[in-house]
Amino acid sequence: MARTPRSVDLTQVTEWNEGKLARKDDYLAAEEPLEIRIGEHPLSVTMRTPGHDLELAAGFLLTEGLVQQRGQILALESASQDDAGRKGNAVEATLSPESAPDFDKMRRHFFAASSCGICGKASIESVRSRLLRAPNPDFRVDPDLLTRLPETLRLAQDVFERTGGLHAAALFDAQGQLLVVREDIGRHNAVDKVIGWGFLNDRVPLKDCLLLVSGRGGFEIVQKAIVAGIPVVACVSAPSSLAVQLARELQLTLVGFVRGKRFVIYAGDDRVAT
Amino acid sequence: MARTPRSVDLTQVTEWNEGKLARKDDYLAAEEPLEIRIGEHPLSVTMRTPGHDLELAAGFLLTEGLVQQRGQILALESASQDDAGRKGNAVEATLSPESAPDFDKMRRHFFAASSCGICGKASIESVRSRLLRAPNPDFRVDPDLLTRLPETLRLAQDVFERTGGLHAAALFDAQGQLLVVREDIGRHNAVDKVIGWGFLNDRVPLKDCLLLVSGRGGFEIVQKAIVAGIPVVACVSAPSSLAVQLARELQLTLVGFVRGKRFVIYAGDDRVAT
Repeated sequence: MARTPRSVDLTQVTEWNEGKLARKDDYLAAEEPLEIRIGEHPLSVTMRTPGHDLELAAGFLLTEGLVQQRGQILALESASQDDAGRKGNAVEATLSPESAPDFDKMRRHFFAASSCGICGKASIESVRSRLLRAPNPDFRVDPDLLTRLPETLRLAQDVFERTGGLHAAALFDAQGQLLVVREDIGRHNAVDKVIGWGFLNDRVPLKDCLLLVSGRGGFEIVQKAIVAGIPVVACVSAPSSLAVQLARELQLTLVGFVRGKRFVIYAGDDRVAT
Repeated sequence: MARTPRSVDLTQVTEWNEGKLARKDDYLAAEEPLEIRIGEHPLSVTMRTPGHDLELAAGFLLTEGLVQQRGQILALESASQDDAGRKGNAVEATLSPESAPDFDKMRRHFFAASSCGICGKASIESVRSRLLRAPNPDFRVDPDLLTRLPETLRLAQDVFERTGGLHAAALFDAQGQLLVVREDIGRHNAVDKVIGWGFLNDRVPLKDCLLLVSGRGGFEIVQKAIVAGIPVVACVSAPSSLAVQLARELQLTLVGFVRGKRFVIYAGDDRVAT
């Protein structure tokens, strides 16, 4: 265990192969809870793959609407979590006084139904209400270049090959240059990590970036991209109905099934220059 | 739209294939929010694929520890959500008086850190504390039979082939008989649906069942199986470190990478009879 990174665990397993049994070493994608706190107030607990925890927390705070500007986060650090003072599975954020959330209001919100009912339309309106501007209309990506991005992502993934168990998310620029790649047991966490990387590096809104995710694209992924100002989301597998609806209504480009020399454009055809 | 089931949406997309563009019809996995209520109190909102909503709610109530016995759910129904009285994206549960949750306590719990810190060990202890008994030690599954289950699952999936966007979960008996299969945009929802099916049919604890999931196996999946009394969990892809640790500590059998004539046993070798 000492020489493997904390995002991977080494363990002994039994392999069954056409009737033959063998004991083997195997790598597992690490999964542990992370608590995000504002000051000393616990905000959320998420199961994640350890590593890049500060980026995860920063991305979460941005994409969940708790902060809008980098300057609202005064401090962000791994919190000691036991009597021995070891750093671990908690990140503590100190926000500027005017952006500290009203925890009583959040509790009420969490347990309160929206007045107009629960539906996809209300979910989309809730994203729209948090937006400052529509995604960059001038960003373009070349289709040939787009088809090469999944291979770049795979080459950059350092954990996936060993465990087969991690989602990846990456940001690319319009020239296909890889800016950052992050992996996690949770798809939404991988996306929060790359967005958090951009946020902590003062690059938000990420208006000249494409977000690529290794699997499916659901509502939550598109929502996070929109809040971070990303104009194009590409996924290696299928998007969901609500993700497509959200992308169309808020003018994001959503591409799916990027495989081989083919892909499918679900929304915002204009940004895929042909 | 009228002739497709509500779990699938039909839409128009643009396909790019080696430089050629074509407009096409495409099927999308449907995703919409579902609110689960206890009486009139909203309990949670989850993004799910519509269909089998009552099973999803029942499975959620069981696996999240809100109820333990079928009899504690006095009524479970789709709630009308608009002025026209249409049924929709909400399920209302009426619980027996002694099992109605203390919402104030739940709010505190939701925002309170556990006193022993946030870690994998605490997560496992929290599952252990909710258990009545260890998973059935006498359940056995034949390895050859096990390797054939993913194909049975694929044949039974009615949405996946069209959309490429859904997770599946299924329960099998020791003879490899498929008992139920459910699909959802969320892996945990598909599992809640099959467990909810068992719960509503008075089959919990599901002590003579194997749970097969189409993708990866994380902590949450194993946790739900354990709470429902399922002794064997098999996944087509990789489990996580915490899922393996939980399975080992609570004596569940966890199998991964069930592909072709091969699989890997991560915990509880004994139940895979050889």
